[in-house]
Amino acid sequence: MAFLNDHYLKLKAGYLFPEIARRVNAYAAENTSTAKSIIRCGIGDVTEPLPAAVREAMHQAVDEMGRRETFRGYGPEQGYEFLRHAIAENDYRARGLQVADDEIFVSDGSKCDCGNILDIFGHQNRIAVMDPVYPVYVDTNVMAGHTGEADSTGSYSGLVYLACNAGNHFVPGIPDERVDLVYLCYPNNPTGAVATQDQLGAWVNYALASDAIILFDAAYEAYIQDSNIPHSIYEIPRADECASTSNGEKRPLFPLWHRRFSTKFNSVSYPVQRGAEAIYTSDGKKQVRELIEHYLNNAEILSTALAKTGLKVFGGRNAPYIWIQAPTSYQSWDVFDKILNEIQVVITPGAGFGSQGEGYFRVSAFNSGQNAEEVARRFQALKW
Amino acid sequence: MAFLNDHYLKLKAGYLFPEIARRVNAYAAENTSTAKSIIRCGIGDVTEPLPAAVREAMHQAVDEMGRRETFRGYGPEQGYEFLRHAIAENDYRARGLQVADDEIFVSDGSKCDCGNILDIFGHQNRIAVMDPVYPVYVDTNVMAGHTGEADSTGSYSGLVYLACNAGNHFVPGIPDERVDLVYLCYPNNPTGAVATQDQLGAWVNYALASDAIILFDAAYEAYIQDSNIPHSIYEIPRADECASTSNGEKRPLFPLWHRRFSTKFNSVSYPVQRGAEAIYTSDGKKQVRELIEHYLNNAEILSTALAKTGLKVFGGRNAPYIWIQAPTSYQSWDVFDKILNEIQVVITPGAGFGSQGEGYFRVSAFNSGQNAEEVARRFQALKW
Repeated sequence: MAFLNDHYLKLKAGYLFPEIARRVNAYAAENTSTAKSIIRCGIGDVTEPLPAAVREAMHQAVDEMGRRETFRGYGPEQGYEFLRHAIAENDYRARGLQVADDEIFVSDGSKCDCGNILDIFGHQNRIAVMDPVYPVYVDTNVMAGHTGEADSTGSYSGLVYLACNAGNHFVPGIPDERVDLVYLCYPNNPTGAVATQDQLGAWVNYALASDAIILFDAAYEAYIQDSNIPHSIYEIPRADECASTSNGEKRPLFPLWHRRFSTKFNSVSYPVQRGAEAIYTSDGKKQVRELIEHYLNNAEILSTALAKTGLKVFGGRNAPYIWIQAPTSYQSWDVFDKILNEIQVVITPGAGFGSQGEGYFRVSAFNSGQNAEEVARRFQALKW
Repeated sequence: MAFLNDHYLKLKAGYLFPEIARRVNAYAAENTSTAKSIIRCGIGDVTEPLPAAVREAMHQAVDEMGRRETFRGYGPEQGYEFLRHAIAENDYRARGLQVADDEIFVSDGSKCDCGNILDIFGHQNRIAVMDPVYPVYVDTNVMAGHTGEADSTGSYSGLVYLACNAGNHFVPGIPDERVDLVYLCYPNNPTGAVATQDQLGAWVNYALASDAIILFDAAYEAYIQDSNIPHSIYEIPRADECASTSNGEKRPLFPLWHRRFSTKFNSVSYPVQRGAEAIYTSDGKKQVRELIEHYLNNAEILSTALAKTGLKVFGGRNAPYIWIQAPTSYQSWDVFDKILNEIQVVITPGAGFGSQGEGYFRVSAFNSGQNAEEVARRFQALKW
C-alpha cells in the first residue's frame, strides 16, 4: 500500500494568493460596474516588457538552435559557463567578493532554490524564519516534516519565528534559543526593509560561533539604492558554508548542492540563459536599470501618498514593496476587504505572511506609472 | 550546528556519465592522433536542430514579451493552459484516454519529475526499480533516505530490484515481496525494450490489488512504431492514482502534486512553452516525425550492423537505444575500454545501470546519419 507524505496535509489549504484571488473574484461577481476599475497591487509580479537586449539575445539563441553546428542538447545542469561567469563577475567579483563561476547555480528562481536546498540538510536542524515571512520558506519546511501543526495564526510548531516589526526595524536580533538554519531575506519580502552591514554582521558572527547556516535570499538586491546596504551576505567577512554530518564531521555544502542539481534538475533552456546573460551587457544593464527605476518611482509615488494619509509607511525605498501599518482597530483581512470595496485596489494582507504581519498590509510597486498614480490618488481619498 | 542530509553521502561518487567522460578524456590525452575520430554514442542526447515550427513559435513569444499588452509575468506553476490542453488533447484524448487538461503538469523534464514526485510520498513505502535502471530513480531514493548503503555492484539495500534480462524480454514480472511504489520505464532506458498491453496490465492489476502506485516514465513514447504497444500506462483500464495517509485514509495524489508545483517550481518560461505547443501543429508534428525517423533510422543501421557481428542485440526498434550483450568473457567496463581503444566509439557500459546490466552495453542512436553509418562500419571491423 503506497503511503502519502502526511506532512503535506498540515499545510493550510488557503495559500495566501489563492485566497486573495477568491475574494477579488467574489467582489467582481457582485459588483460588475466597479469591478472594471480594480487595480492589483497584490502579487509581486512585474508588469513591464522584457528589455530589448534580452529579447535580442533570445532570438539569436533560438536561431542557433536551428542550425546543426550551433544546436545544443542538454546543457550542464548547474547552468552554462557563460552565464555563471557573467553572474559571478558582475554581481560578486565587481563588488570585490571572491565568488568563483562554478559557485553560481542557475535555476528556475530563488523561490525554488529556497525550497530545494532543504534536500541537502538533515531533519535534525532547528529552523528559524522571520515573521512576517515569505510563505515558501515555511511551507517547504512543513512539507519536509520539520514542523508540527499550524495554530490559529498560521504559525507552525517546531519552527522558530523571529519577530520583525517597527521596533526592530524589521531586522530580527539573535534569538535566545539555538537555531541551525536561518532564513534571512533582504531587501525583504514583504516588508521592503533592508539590513545594514552591522545587522547582517551579527548574524554571520552567530552562524560562525554556532556552526549555523544562513540561507540568504537576495532576490530583490537590484532594487537597493543606498550605497551602504549590502547586496549579498558574502559582503560580510567570514560568511561561511560548512555543515556537519550526524557524526560531527564538517563538510562543505557545495558537492551536495551540485549533486542535487545534476540529479534532480535539467537546468534552464539555452535561449533563456542567453537572455539572462544579456542583462550584463552595457545595453542590458541600462535597460534593467530603467526598469528598476520605473518600479522604484512607483514605490515613491505610493509611499508618499500613503504617508500623507497619516499611516505609518515602511520599505519602498530599496525594495519594490511598501509595508503599511493600518490604524490599530483594523485586522489585515478587514483592511484587504475595505480597500477592495471602497477604492477597488488589491493589496496583500500582512497576516498572510505570519502572525507579526497582523495589522499591516503590503502594496506592490509592480505596475504601470499610470496605475501607481491612480492608486496613490485613491488611497488619499480613503477614509479610515 | 547545522546538519547535512547524511543520505547524500551514500551516493556513489562516480556517477556513470562523469566516469565515462573521465575515461574518454584520459584516452584523448594519451592518443592525440586517434582522439579526433572519437564518435560518441554514450549519453542519450539529441543532436539535430530544433524544428522550424518550434523556433517560429519561440520567436513570436519572445516578441510578445517585448510589448506591454502581451507581456507575461509569472505563469501558472503547473504550466500554461494552452500547453496543458495541447498535450492532453494530442497525447491522451486523441488516443481515447480521458485525461483532463489540468492533470497535465509542465516541468523541466521527466528526469526531474521522477525525483521530485518522491516529495509527496511517505518514507514508509517499499520501492521497486527495474535493474538495469535509469540511475535517477535510484539516486533520488538514496537522497530521500529510502535506502541503506550500496554494495560492490552499486545496488542499495532497502530497494527491491526487479531483474530485467533477455529471459523476461526486459519486462519484470510481479515480485514475491510487497512493493508500494514501482518505477516502470517504457520504451526503456537503457534496454530499448517496450512492454505490451498484457505485461503492463499485470502491473496495473497488482497495483490495484495492493494499493501500490506505478510511476510510469514514458519519456521515449514518441519512438514507438509498433501500433499495439501502449504509449501510456493510462491505456491500461483502471490505472489509478490514489495513495494512503499513515492512518489508512485514501487520498488522491493530485492536490499534493499540484501544491508541490505551486510551492517549489516556477514553471517553464513562456517562449519555451509556446515552442512546446508548436510540436502539436501540423507542421510541428511533421517535423518531429522526421526527427524521430532520423534517429530510428540510425538505430536500424546500428542494430543491423551489430547483429551481423554475431552479438545479441535488443531494443532499437521502438526506442533510440540499442542494448547489446557482449561475449560472455567481457565485463561492461572492459567492453567500454575495448570499444573506445580499438574503434574510438563511446558507448555506455551496462553495469552503470545496475548489476543486471553487467555484460551488456548501450549504444545511443542520437547522432548524425553519417556518424551512425561510420559507427556501424567500425563495429563490423571490431574483433572480439
